[in-house]
Amino acid sequence: MSWLNASIMRTRGVAQGRGPVTHSLTEALQGKFHYTIGPYTAPVLTVKPGDRVVVDTRDAFEGKIRTPQDLPSKVLTLPFVNPQNGPIMVEGAAPGDVVAVYIESMLPRGENPRGTCCMIPQFGALSGTSFTALLADSLPEIVRKIDVDEDGVYWSPRVTLPYRPHIGTLSCSPQIDSLSSLTPDAHGGNMDLPDMGPGSITYLPVRTDGARVFIGDAHACQGDGEVCGTAVEYSSTTTIQVDLIKGWAIDWPRLETEQMIMAIGSARPLEDATRIAYKELILWMEQDYGYDRWDAYMMLSQCGKVRLGNFVDPKYTVGAGITKNYLSMP
Amino acid sequence: MSWLNASIMRTRGVAQGRGPVTHSLTEALQGKFHYTIGPYTAPVLTVKPGDRVVVDTRDAFEGKIRTPQDLPSKVLTLPFVNPQNGPIMVEGAAPGDVVAVYIESMLPRGENPRGTCCMIPQFGALSGTSFTALLADSLPEIVRKIDVDEDGVYWSPRVTLPYRPHIGTLSCSPQIDSLSSLTPDAHGGNMDLPDMGPGSITYLPVRTDGARVFIGDAHACQGDGEVCGTAVEYSSTTTIQVDLIKGWAIDWPRLETEQMIMAIGSARPLEDATRIAYKELILWMEQDYGYDRWDAYMMLSQCGKVRLGNFVDPKYTVGAGITKNYLSMP
Amino acid sequence: MSWLNASIMRTRGVAQGRGPVTHSLTEALQGKFHYTIGPYTAPVLTVKPGDRVVVDTRDAFEGKIRTPQDLPSKVLTLPFVNPQNGPIMVEGAAPGDVVAVYIESMLPRGENPRGTCCMIPQFGALSGTSFTALLADSLPEIVRKIDVDEDGVYWSPRVTLPYRPHIGTLSCSPQIDSLSSLTPDAHGGNMDLPDMGPGSITYLPVRTDGARVFIGDAHACQGDGEVCGTAVEYSSTTTIQVDLIKGWAIDWPRLETEQMIMAIGSARPLEDATRIAYKELILWMEQDYGYDRWDAYMMLSQCGKVRLGNFVDPKYTVGAGITKNYLSMP
Amino acid sequence: MSWLNASIMRTRGVAQGRGPVTHSLTEALQGKFHYTIGPYTAPVLTVKPGDRVVVDTRDAFEGKIRTPQDLPSKVLTLPFVNPQNGPIMVEGAAPGDVVAVYIESMLPRGENPRGTCCMIPQFGALSGTSFTALLADSLPEIVRKIDVDEDGVYWSPRVTLPYRPHIGTLSCSPQIDSLSSLTPDAHGGNMDLPDMGPGSITYLPVRTDGARVFIGDAHACQGDGEVCGTAVEYSSTTTIQVDLIKGWAIDWPRLETEQMIMAIGSARPLEDATRIAYKELILWMEQDYGYDRWDAYMMLSQCGKVRLGNFVDPKYTVGAGITKNYLSMP
Repeated sequence: MSWLNASIMRTRGVAQGRGPVTHSLTEALQGKFHYTIGPYTAPVLTVKPGDRVVVDTRDAFEGKIRTPQDLPSKVLTLPFVNPQNGPIMVEGAAPGDVVAVYIESMLPRGENPRGTCCMIPQFGALSGTSFTALLADSLPEIVRKIDVDEDGVYWSPRVTLPYRPHIGTLSCSPQIDSLSSLTPDAHGGNMDLPDMGPGSITYLPVRTDGARVFIGDAHACQGDGEVCGTAVEYSSTTTIQVDLIKGWAIDWPRLETEQMIMAIGSARPLEDATRIAYKELILWMEQDYGYDRWDAYMMLSQCGKVRLGNFVDPKYTVGAGITKNYLSMP
Repeated sequence: MSWLNASIMRTRGVAQGRGPVTHSLTEALQGKFHYTIGPYTAPVLTVKPGDRVVVDTRDAFEGKIRTPQDLPSKVLTLPFVNPQNGPIMVEGAAPGDVVAVYIESMLPRGENPRGTCCMIPQFGALSGTSFTALLADSLPEIVRKIDVDEDGVYWSPRVTLPYRPHIGTLSCSPQIDSLSSLTPDAHGGNMDLPDMGPGSITYLPVRTDGARVFIGDAHACQGDGEVCGTAVEYSSTTTIQVDLIKGWAIDWPRLETEQMIMAIGSARPLEDATRIAYKELILWMEQDYGYDRWDAYMMLSQCGKVRLGNFVDPKYTVGAGITKNYLSMP
Repeated sequence: MSWLNASIMRTRGVAQGRGPVTHSLTEALQGKFHYTIGPYTAPVLTVKPGDRVVVDTRDAFEGKIRTPQDLPSKVLTLPFVNPQNGPIMVEGAAPGDVVAVYIESMLPRGENPRGTCCMIPQFGALSGTSFTALLADSLPEIVRKIDVDEDGVYWSPRVTLPYRPHIGTLSCSPQIDSLSSLTPDAHGGNMDLPDMGPGSITYLPVRTDGARVFIGDAHACQGDGEVCGTAVEYSSTTTIQVDLIKGWAIDWPRLETEQMIMAIGSARPLEDATRIAYKELILWMEQDYGYDRWDAYMMLSQCGKVRLGNFVDPKYTVGAGITKNYLSMP
Repeated sequence: MSWLNASIMRTRGVAQGRGPVTHSLTEALQGKFHYTIGPYTAPVLTVKPGDRVVVDTRDAFEGKIRTPQDLPSKVLTLPFVNPQNGPIMVEGAAPGDVVAVYIESMLPRGENPRGTCCMIPQFGALSGTSFTALLADSLPEIVRKIDVDEDGVYWSPRVTLPYRPHIGTLSCSPQIDSLSSLTPDAHGGNMDLPDMGPGSITYLPVRTDGARVFIGDAHACQGDGEVCGTAVEYSSTTTIQVDLIKGWAIDWPRLETEQMIMAIGSARPLEDATRIAYKELILWMEQDYGYDRWDAYMMLSQCGKVRLGNFVDPKYTVGAGITKNYLSMP
């Protein structure tokens, strides 16, 4: 874990690795979960930069899909899906700052089959949807319940997938809007980015005093794009460490791992999400790593890495990254 | 005004043309204007179905652009633009109902030059924007102040445009989200549809008790698509009549004039907005006018009319319409 | 027809209204029709600027759909649809010039029911398609045969639509590519623009010596967007007059009627088609009508007119227009 | 190279690993290079399934950019860019078959600085373009000349990139169209997919007798999306082995490496390219690997891999892949 000491969080964060106090955000403490991310809800917890929080997240269906017979169209009621823990207040956070969220670990929670994947009518990338509005019939409505543990995701008799957890939805509150937890945007939201797992640090722009961090939507694993619309959704115990970087004005979320830095954009159509991600990455290389703007642009045309988070949510999410070996100062 | 008696509003609305009491929503009564449309604000007025409201709207820049030297980048602060009057509560309105807003008249308000049109950096259809994120420089920042009266919009020494006012932003509150007044969506919002002027009735789905109607963003005239990003924005005295249709479950706003009915969709990319509009129109023809679904689909391929509202807002807006002569029952 | 004398064609064309010789492009003379538009086919006719050509066009299905039982999936074989007459060589035309095609008249041809409209599997705006590739089932495959004469399009017992013919596909050859007649692009192609009917002049950029004009795909009427994928397709006798404008470098097709000028763009997504159309219109106003670029941009935001041609072809087509009353020099 | 023996090419191809005769497609033999891919050009070579061809490719600028002062706007003339070798005829190939192209090796050719990367006016993902038509100024026009050898791409004093060559453009001829070599589509074309390097096999649908294979556009390395519009373009000696699979009806190109299989889609907007790729992959898993369609769809939502080839060409290209460990029959 030594790379963390050289991370942006540790070198620019106010905690400087001090602390941490560990808080526990249990289901009981959370009480009511949230389906919209904004400034109009009461905080559940206040932390200092450097503190750890052990969060009990609920799955995206809030546990209502227990068997393959619990069809989404029967047991779910929009917009009451993708429940979020929070808001967590970060002491000292103010607009113009950045909150760093390091994901320390993600453990499965609850009894097996813990995992749920489903095909929901008029949802998913290869179906007509409420936005790509068609007259075609829906695809079949199918629910899969899946055993999940730290060793694997037991998809089918034929296939066991690796356990590669990540957090699907992570946000600071927008300034005055309150957005559906299904939507990713400049505040974070439902990005569904597989890189946002244990060992990653997400940097979120602060838009209200106290930042108001929301977190939820754990995935036991997910492919690029989340093509059918859902991952292996499950309840998790997710341990995060929160830090604060003062005066770092960023417009969109960013991410750091041991190997790379990544800028994140969410928009429709998908090329606009990709444009945002690459533009933010170029400006980042210019501002913090001594690159000329056009050198960065042309060089990323040779070595940039793109991750498709989702192309099924109300906005699509793309990360554009570069490996750290190209960032060390000459 | 006889067509009104045969309108959907009059034939299905609970007021049945009774009333109306006239309310005055002055700037003083409004007090604080709103920049986000949702359920978290205090009502300014409660009306009964059939009542009239005379609304003093502010222009989209809230009067801050008074001269060509008042550049948007200097005098405006996002997200505090496009101020909305409301919320107006409608007695008896509940989720599953529809609020009808008939626009009776729109008069210019304030002193000339009342009209403002501007090119805003990183905004407009022929510029890079915050979503279509590019490395290109912004277009020039230009402000036009324009005299407006009921006889014309005095664009330039060379050109006088007709005074063709409409309301740019009209909404009922979303259920739990609170959305930027810049964004159009299934709740209405910033549709910028030139058809939404005097003589039109807009039908809005109700998603919260009391409906919570917001209105603002008057345009003295506007071309299809609002290509540079702004219309001739001005302060208006807009007189509306509000009615309530119980138990009409619609997913998106709809519009009626003497000549036609129109369904409205807002999405990106633009083809998705158009898909929504046409799909909603087909379902409407099927449900209320005795058309077979496929007959309606194929027939609109021969006689459907499309209006591009805007392709500059966070979502783009399209109306798909059919003239009423094809709707009379055989 | 006096407006024609003031048209761009008459004032800038080399024919200056002289002539015309009338040619007859019968089915027999045409022989083999074409399904790809390019420089690799033998000319069927050579005309001088100012000449008229009476063209016998075949319908988009080349007459293979004669009854409602002739399903497209049975009787059509891709890419052999949308047959084109031509290429017609225009004497003196060279790259950098423009060919003007004035449509004088369009008459129905062949026996009734002459008109055909159909829903084709995996085609149309409200269906999954080969590009918007989904796993959803196709919509029903339905064929309508429709009586058409100069008084009307007899859609159903309930509805008679007006006869409003236009040419769906009109092109000069690309320089070295040969493109499917189903595709609209900078060379013209399958634009499906309802404005391209009798009384209109289309201006096409010339990219090869002799221009190589292709024409076909007559529609007895069509709604904005051609939503189900097909218009009322029929065989026509279309009379055109062809002229040549030397040294007018335009990048995309343009159109003129008595009331307006219009620039045409074809692209995906639909906003890009609209961007092209508006940009070309602005540059046109700047170049030929004395407008400052930013004045034109801001003014079209108040008075521009958008026509959606199609949003079902391999590229979507949009026209952006302005009425001529704003073009007269001050 | 043992994985090759178990590849689709070897197990289903007619050559069965027999041969190979080695042909040399030198610049002299090629003579005229091609800028459009279609059935209207004379073959340069005929090979039998299993034969090897050593191809001398020219760089995308056909060697015209020799120094940083050779600006694209000065030395290039559209559409004469991206020169292609071929067409190579494959004996026995007929519509309904597939040609397999195994890339054995790619070596730099010509004198250093062999590599060229440039920013071209109105081109690239973060600029207005001829399709995303804006009024914004172009980005600066910049040319980089880069030393390239088998050990590295010497980008700048600060950065050396790994030599990771791939073929940017690979095609069989369309049936009757002849498409710009700049465009990717169902025939292959300018896909710019970094996976298409040495050790990969590309499967291309055959649409004309003899297949007519075109190849060109070598890249010494390229990032995901080719964001500035160009890779490190260079002249190469590319050795391929060509095989023929009879009666494999595929709609889009596919790719195989030692680790994975990948389906490739090209379209705008980018989500449509991704939809095509995932749909084709699902149908492939269903047809050849015993997967139920919905199981494949839901499982790829957990383990699918997406590669963004380009989002700068006339169509954008995406590959969707799955690692082979999930494909072995149960």
